Amino acid sequence: MELVPNNSLKCTTPEDGRRLAISLALQTSFAMQPDEHVQEIIRTTYANNPEDLLAASQVVATEFATIAAANDYWR
Amino acid sequence: MELVPNNSLKCTTPEDGRRLAISLALQTSFAMQPDEHVQEIIRTTYANNPEDLLAASQVVATEFATIAAANDYWR
Amino acid sequence: MELVPNNSLKCTTPEDGRRLAISLALQTSFAMQPDEHVQEIIRTTYANNPEDLLAASQVVATEFATIAAANDYWR
Amino acid sequence: MELVPNNSLKCTTPEDGRRLAISLALQTSFAMQPDEHVQEIIRTTYANNPEDLLAASQVVATEFATIAAANDYWR
Amino acid sequence: MELVPNNSLKCTTPEDGRRLAISLALQTSFAMQPDEHVQEIIRTTYANNPEDLLAASQVVATEFATIAAANDYWR
Amino acid sequence: MELVPNNSLKCTTPEDGRRLAISLALQTSFAMQPDEHVQEIIRTTYANNPEDLLAASQVVATEFATIAAANDYWR
Repeated sequence: MELVPNNSLKCTTPEDGRRLAISLALQTSFAMQPDEHVQEIIRTTYANNPEDLLAASQVVATEFATIAAANDYWR
Repeated sequence: MELVPNNSLKCTTPEDGRRLAISLALQTSFAMQPDEHVQEIIRTTYANNPEDLLAASQVVATEFATIAAANDYWR
Repeated sequence: MELVPNNSLKCTTPEDGRRLAISLALQTSFAMQPDEHVQEIIRTTYANNPEDLLAASQVVATEFATIAAANDYWR
Repeated sequence: MELVPNNSLKCTTPEDGRRLAISLALQTSFAMQPDEHVQEIIRTTYANNPEDLLAASQVVATEFATIAAANDYWR
Repeated sequence: MELVPNNSLKCTTPEDGRRLAISLALQTSFAMQPDEHVQEIIRTTYANNPEDLLAASQVVATEFATIAAANDYWR
Repeated sequence: MELVPNNSLKCTTPEDGRRLAISLALQTSFAMQPDEHVQEIIRTTYANNPEDLLAASQVVATEFATIAAANDYWR
């Protein structure tokens, strides 16, 4: 399983960086739970539970901080 | 769906940076739950639940840290 | 609604920075829940619930990290 | 109420920095809940609840990161 | 018990950095709970509980931030 | 009670840094709950509760970020 798409933190734009942050965040769950059926259940649970969405958003925010620094904040 | 408004982290003032932080924080939830009806339910849940508001505030604080660094803290 | 008092992260002292951190942290909740009556209920809930106070303290600590960096740690 | 003892982040040693981190972390709760009787109840709750102790430790770790940076990590 | 594989934060690629982040994150639990039977129960609990997966993902994101900085973001 | 062993963040290796991170993380709990009997109960609770282990791992990750920066990431 690939944990970092294209094995790179380089992103052309903040929008790309944001999509990478979401990928990284979700990929960690899938690395720890490789069963695709259980993954599907988990993804549905996340998407319909406000507290889970907030917790996932926190992970994304943390990943994005790293990606933004890696790209020198697209200055 | 656009994850970063105007595809930029540049903000003229801290106030603008703060608004962007709130946008980024909420946009992650909407990216994971694209159904607008469920989004509405979730938004109402957040707004009326003290613990959810605190969790959302934590996400906003984390996004703001990145935005502030990207703008060299408006020094 | 003003999210950043005086639209500035500049603070003369750590004490001022700390007060700004508390303002920013609470202001996010109020931006998401503009009803003043509900705000009052939420504020009372925070103040009397140990777990909420800890969660709020975490948000304040995160905001303060940004403010301290913005002020070059008052060195 | 004083939020930052001596209104300074300067600490001579890591040990002093750690004590300041604990002070800052607890002081936020007291600023939001000024009633000393309720404070006492909350402090006792924290000290006897493993999850609260962990949450408080997270706040302290976050405050300490800021204090350590402010003191250039006592290098 | 070894807490940091090869006693180094150096990683050739972001993918390697990501794997190290997951190792560091899980290794902390095992250091605090050395019984292998209990470890196995905990690992299974994590993998099947959405909230635990999110909490673990948050730890991984935090470890990855440090590893990425240590490797100058593989620039 | 000593909060920072040897009153220093200097560590020769990442492995030493990791051990210091675990010490700092646990020491905060003990500073807030000095009763050794209650400490023992809390330590056992942590070690057998998956959510507590994850929360403790998050604190350790945060402390390690500071320690790694203090040691210039052992570059």
